[in-house]
Amino acid sequence: MALVRVQNFAVSLDGFGTGEGQSADAHFGHAGDRLHEWMFTTRWWQPGGSGGVDDAFVRQHDVGIGAEIMGAGKFGHPGWHEDPDWRGAWGPNPPFHTPVFVLTHHRREPIEMAGGTTFHFLDASPAEAVDVAREAAGGKDIRVGGGATTIREFLSAGLVDHLHVVVVPILLGRGVRLWDGLEGVERDFQVESTSSPSGVTHVTFTRTTA
Amino acid sequence: MALVRVQNFAVSLDGFGTGEGQSADAHFGHAGDRLHEWMFTTRWWQPGGSGGVDDAFVRQHDVGIGAEIMGAGKFGHPGWHEDPDWRGAWGPNPPFHTPVFVLTHHRREPIEMAGGTTFHFLDASPAEAVDVAREAAGGKDIRVGGGATTIREFLSAGLVDHLHVVVVPILLGRGVRLWDGLEGVERDFQVESTSSPSGVTHVTFTRTTA
Repeated sequence: MALVRVQNFAVSLDGFGTGEGQSADAHFGHAGDRLHEWMFTTRWWQPGGSGGVDDAFVRQHDVGIGAEIMGAGKFGHPGWHEDPDWRGAWGPNPPFHTPVFVLTHHRREPIEMAGGTTFHFLDASPAEAVDVAREAAGGKDIRVGGGATTIREFLSAGLVDHLHVVVVPILLGRGVRLWDGLEGVERDFQVESTSSPSGVTHVTFTRTTA
Repeated sequence: MALVRVQNFAVSLDGFGTGEGQSADAHFGHAGDRLHEWMFTTRWWQPGGSGGVDDAFVRQHDVGIGAEIMGAGKFGHPGWHEDPDWRGAWGPNPPFHTPVFVLTHHRREPIEMAGGTTFHFLDASPAEAVDVAREAAGGKDIRVGGGATTIREFLSAGLVDHLHVVVVPILLGRGVRLWDGLEGVERDFQVESTSSPSGVTHVTFTRTTA
């Protein structure tokens, strides 16, 4: 059975998945790149980078994935839907290489990008989105790509089978929280924590109940 | 120079240092013992326990400490000051063995306990409390013992030299948050994270600026 997975979702030690003040120039608001610097030192990112635990995890992003679901806030800064030419924040060849379902009340025609990524725009509940994405994934897993609010909603609805969160040892103080309203969710999962020499801690939730 | 230290302060993955509904029977509210189970499997706690990283950290609680400062909410459940016989939640021989300064607007006479612990009641700012505790500590370090609100206030005032937080992989969902309002505090510290086979992650903040 194909799984619904979250991979490489970074939060600050105080639990923020993005900072405040998101815009076209600041996809993560005042957090800047700080939630993702752990990726930049891996050999996945650059030759000569580390092949350690950060590298092992970061590469799971694509493995076995047939479709992504993302929130409107990941696809673009607030107001992107008023720009008919907005095609996401990743340039002409986005790093998804599968169908991507953008959850939004502002539907538009699909956008086919280079490298196998097609953005579809879906006004649907989390459960409905999983059904649509499963159909498109051809038997492979579905990645829930974020942002924090979207992951929280999918966790809350019991739809996530595997969650990989990267806790970055900074205190953002403000932004969008990942963990709010999820009391007791860990009971359905085996939880493991692995600290990296880079300073981040990888926390995985692996579902143990059907 | 003697340091101001926080040792063994446990928070949930979503950042709560205690749960909701604290009472005489539930010192940590709905969290119960879940924030502290990692201690119970160490050989510090019981013969035959593990001598690993959890044990190494838990034993730092007392090492080199000459006094503790704690908030009123650690000394007792809400309303303890209306009970003239309340002597703390730790029985006749509390695990401090030094002077302990309880920050409270409800002052009372000092209480001398067995084993070297004396509770003093102090209506003072964090900085004033450190001055008083330093005098009593005889050149040794001062521990800020919690709860979450007290540690947050001392961190915010720049008074903490060493912070040891234990992140427990549970989601409490509600209670008292440790990290609120501390944006950027990590910049004054070297931060290390160490995951334990028990599932918790030890995060230490070691001050790098004077």
